[in-house]
Amino acid sequence: IRETRGNLTMKKALIASTALVLTAGAAAADVTISGYGRTGVIYYEDAVQTGLDAFGDEGNDTQVISRLRMNIDAATSTEQGVDFGARFRLQWDQNGDTGGEINAGKLYVTSSGLTVEIGNVEGALDSAGLIFATELGSYDRSVGGNALGAFFAYESEAYSNDERLGIFASYAVDDLEVRFSYIDPDQTGLVEDVDLFGDVKEEYSFSVDYTWNERLELSAGAAINGAGNDDHDVYFVGARYAVMENARIGLNWVDNGDAGDYEGQSSSDPDFDPENDDLGSTVALYGDYTLADGLTNIEAYIANNSGDWEAKETDNSFGIGVNYDLGGARLGASLQRDYQERVTADMGVRFDF
Amino acid sequence: IRETRGNLTMKKALIASTALVLTAGAAAADVTISGYGRTGVIYYEDAVQTGLDAFGDEGNDTQVISRLRMNIDAATSTEQGVDFGARFRLQWDQNGDTGGEINAGKLYVTSSGLTVEIGNVEGALDSAGLIFATELGSYDRSVGGNALGAFFAYESEAYSNDERLGIFASYAVDDLEVRFSYIDPDQTGLVEDVDLFGDVKEEYSFSVDYTWNERLELSAGAAINGAGNDDHDVYFVGARYAVMENARIGLNWVDNGDAGDYEGQSSSDPDFDPENDDLGSTVALYGDYTLADGLTNIEAYIANNSGDWEAKETDNSFGIGVNYDLGGARLGASLQRDYQERVTADMGVRFDF
Amino acid sequence: IRETRGNLTMKKALIASTALVLTAGAAAADVTISGYGRTGVIYYEDAVQTGLDAFGDEGNDTQVISRLRMNIDAATSTEQGVDFGARFRLQWDQNGDTGGEINAGKLYVTSSGLTVEIGNVEGALDSAGLIFATELGSYDRSVGGNALGAFFAYESEAYSNDERLGIFASYAVDDLEVRFSYIDPDQTGLVEDVDLFGDVKEEYSFSVDYTWNERLELSAGAAINGAGNDDHDVYFVGARYAVMENARIGLNWVDNGDAGDYEGQSSSDPDFDPENDDLGSTVALYGDYTLADGLTNIEAYIANNSGDWEAKETDNSFGIGVNYDLGGARLGASLQRDYQERVTADMGVRFDF
Repeated sequence: IRETRGNLTMKKALIASTALVLTAGAAAADVTISGYGRTGVIYYEDAVQTGLDAFGDEGNDTQVISRLRMNIDAATSTEQGVDFGARFRLQWDQNGDTGGEINAGKLYVTSSGLTVEIGNVEGALDSAGLIFATELGSYDRSVGGNALGAFFAYESEAYSNDERLGIFASYAVDDLEVRFSYIDPDQTGLVEDVDLFGDVKEEYSFSVDYTWNERLELSAGAAINGAGNDDHDVYFVGARYAVMENARIGLNWVDNGDAGDYEGQSSSDPDFDPENDDLGSTVALYGDYTLADGLTNIEAYIANNSGDWEAKETDNSFGIGVNYDLGGARLGASLQRDYQERVTADMGVRFDF
Repeated sequence: IRETRGNLTMKKALIASTALVLTAGAAAADVTISGYGRTGVIYYEDAVQTGLDAFGDEGNDTQVISRLRMNIDAATSTEQGVDFGARFRLQWDQNGDTGGEINAGKLYVTSSGLTVEIGNVEGALDSAGLIFATELGSYDRSVGGNALGAFFAYESEAYSNDERLGIFASYAVDDLEVRFSYIDPDQTGLVEDVDLFGDVKEEYSFSVDYTWNERLELSAGAAINGAGNDDHDVYFVGARYAVMENARIGLNWVDNGDAGDYEGQSSSDPDFDPENDDLGSTVALYGDYTLADGLTNIEAYIANNSGDWEAKETDNSFGIGVNYDLGGARLGASLQRDYQERVTADMGVRFDF
Repeated sequence: IRETRGNLTMKKALIASTALVLTAGAAAADVTISGYGRTGVIYYEDAVQTGLDAFGDEGNDTQVISRLRMNIDAATSTEQGVDFGARFRLQWDQNGDTGGEINAGKLYVTSSGLTVEIGNVEGALDSAGLIFATELGSYDRSVGGNALGAFFAYESEAYSNDERLGIFASYAVDDLEVRFSYIDPDQTGLVEDVDLFGDVKEEYSFSVDYTWNERLELSAGAAINGAGNDDHDVYFVGARYAVMENARIGLNWVDNGDAGDYEGQSSSDPDFDPENDDLGSTVALYGDYTLADGLTNIEAYIANNSGDWEAKETDNSFGIGVNYDLGGARLGASLQRDYQERVTADMGVRFDF
């Protein structure tokens, strides 16, 4: 029962995948590496990606943007039918990282449809089935349809604070899945003072997905104190219906909450002023259509945002995209316009392994 | 014979485990990933884990503490029956790391029971079979029974100094294993001056384990200039006897050496004053008993320390713990009191893969 | 087609090697880990490896130098016969890194002999078949025969600049291989001003290898704006001929270009003054001979450099080395003298996995 302290005899774990490998005591342990590579070109007007140089001149509008992601998953099954597991992720983002980074670990236990995660956990709202359904192309970008409000998600890179604590639970039964997450940005209790540290709060989040008759997907969720910001509450409701076997149409509604200082924000990142700006709510209509070849998928969205912030030029954003399935890889492209009337386009390839 | 510089044809190494995979030239190479995940709750009185906030108030006494460890082991066998191997470790500690870290590499060669390691090596004293035998629960903690003195160990995270050099040798024959390690905190010779850099010394360490008649385990070792501190010499002798098939009782004695500035210290970490404090010696009596179910193991220790340091309140510490084997995972808990009369308790789960 | 956001069901990728494993859609994905470990001793006169301490005294001339390298390669094949792949490298260098580092990712696509890489790519000149042919021993070092000029290469550790962009293409047909690389140290366009940022330029590099009649190897290449330095152009031509089945002799010529501020420089690293120093050109004669045992390979070079820099003492450098094949590992040693008449020697072991 004693811990073996890093010695060389520790060889019971196997690297394998579908085939489970028996170790002493009839426990089954396996380790797998999966992930994807993605590269291509992203164009964004007004040097959104590069900013200004020392003379105030704009950098390039077009950048080659690549990502390499590898998930190392380890799992073991006990005799009682309980599965324990853990994940590290290695990720490199071009124009963001000088090298690959390892994120904080996730540990989980799962049994009979119930999964509990501890550590670097999934966020419940972030896991809602349709919340990212407007994303387009090989880069899965949506500058208008995604939530503008902030909420915690599984962190692909290192934490900003090593004392973060996350707990997540999900339960799946038939066509229903419910999720709950609790994320405390700092579990030490040393940064509770509002005047000194700002509004560092625990985030509570939940979401639910339901599929009806294999045609209608319903999805909803909320994050209270989103991304740890006091009173920044984000709500989401979405639905998607398969009108034909190869065509779907959906509608998402997001209340983006009051503006705050949003770490974790996944959208088009205008510089919000937490005092004066209003993120409003977003309604997005979207759909996708698969051509008769069964490989080409065309997708589009149009979104309306009711908010008001300084850089905003229009209440409407939209985008159109396409993906072509190569079998193990896909080619994709998108063309979008954000709420500042800036045009962005991307084209790239992504392969999964 | 020439090195291939990172090109894509380098595919001769296989990921496999028990099954050796043949490469060209009849050399066998394999790579395995093993490790463990551990999570749960640790309580420690007086905010030992969190310290004070900006106003001098104590942080929380209870923390969720998790670890994810993955060892990547690579090995190859030559035709002469000599095995070469290497290890990287990826580790994340909650409340300690913002993400996973890779430690410094260990390289080794082994043949006929003799193993020599270079790089980030095991420490000989740290590898003594019984030196951590008082540790309890799923976290393997012992606030009173572990050595208070410092000595080098295999580093799970990055070095503090990239010029550290370690050499380790062990030899196992029948029921006897002897070990020797030499660790130089800085092999450049640039930090030899005592006045300027303090007492940076090479550590010499050895240990020996012997099992007699499958019932009596004997273990002893020493570290001279422990953890690189001049004249900080740590000595250890221990013995454990299986009084029944399911019960063992043991006695450890550690001379903790003069106090120093102890990097690598693995014990309850009072803030020692290297000039005035005296770590004394520690005697620990410990035992464990497995219930008739064969799965529940109860363990306990009581330790007496003869030292004298400012925060010390008592010469006696003790603890009791339990582990329950799930087959591939274990549940554990412990309750302990340290030499400052602070109570600590933990409860958690650990799974190996 | 939608991205699965880090969830736990992503298990389609297998860790395997020669055997391809089928996933849904008939795409084949595999992940392998390969690399090497290397350790031993390097002696270099005048404390070249360690420098001076705080009192101006030289550090040690002899250092134990180890490396652990692991390449994680992932690849997938589409139904069209196009292969996509990616690589991360984990590397630790003793006396250089406190722990293992992950480099920036490389992504590639290959089909019918044509390979295109994006990200942390190979450099074309760096990949020329013979440019490192004078390297000796288990450490593959050549203090006189290697190019003194600088050019970009695949980076084993993190970039110095996260906005670096690399594109590489190679085409192999029969006995011919041609390569081209384009590496922009900063693709944002924010550091174009010469006065403010110096001569940051894109490097263009190409190389070609041809093998004639299985006896004569021809290799040539160039790097324009080598390692991103304006007007630092490096040219290379080399040839090697197998005079017997177990003996080869070769001749390399390198124009090292004007001196600059050479990051990426892989040679004996004298401190060049970019204004006044002249790296000249290097002619190297080299050869190797395998003894009748088929395991022992003796190798040597003599090189003449026409350049002129302050520390230079001689126009001639030379070296002799030996490697002994253990089958999966090799022992090696070398003795060399550089252009500052400093002697260096190394002896070590390297094993591949």
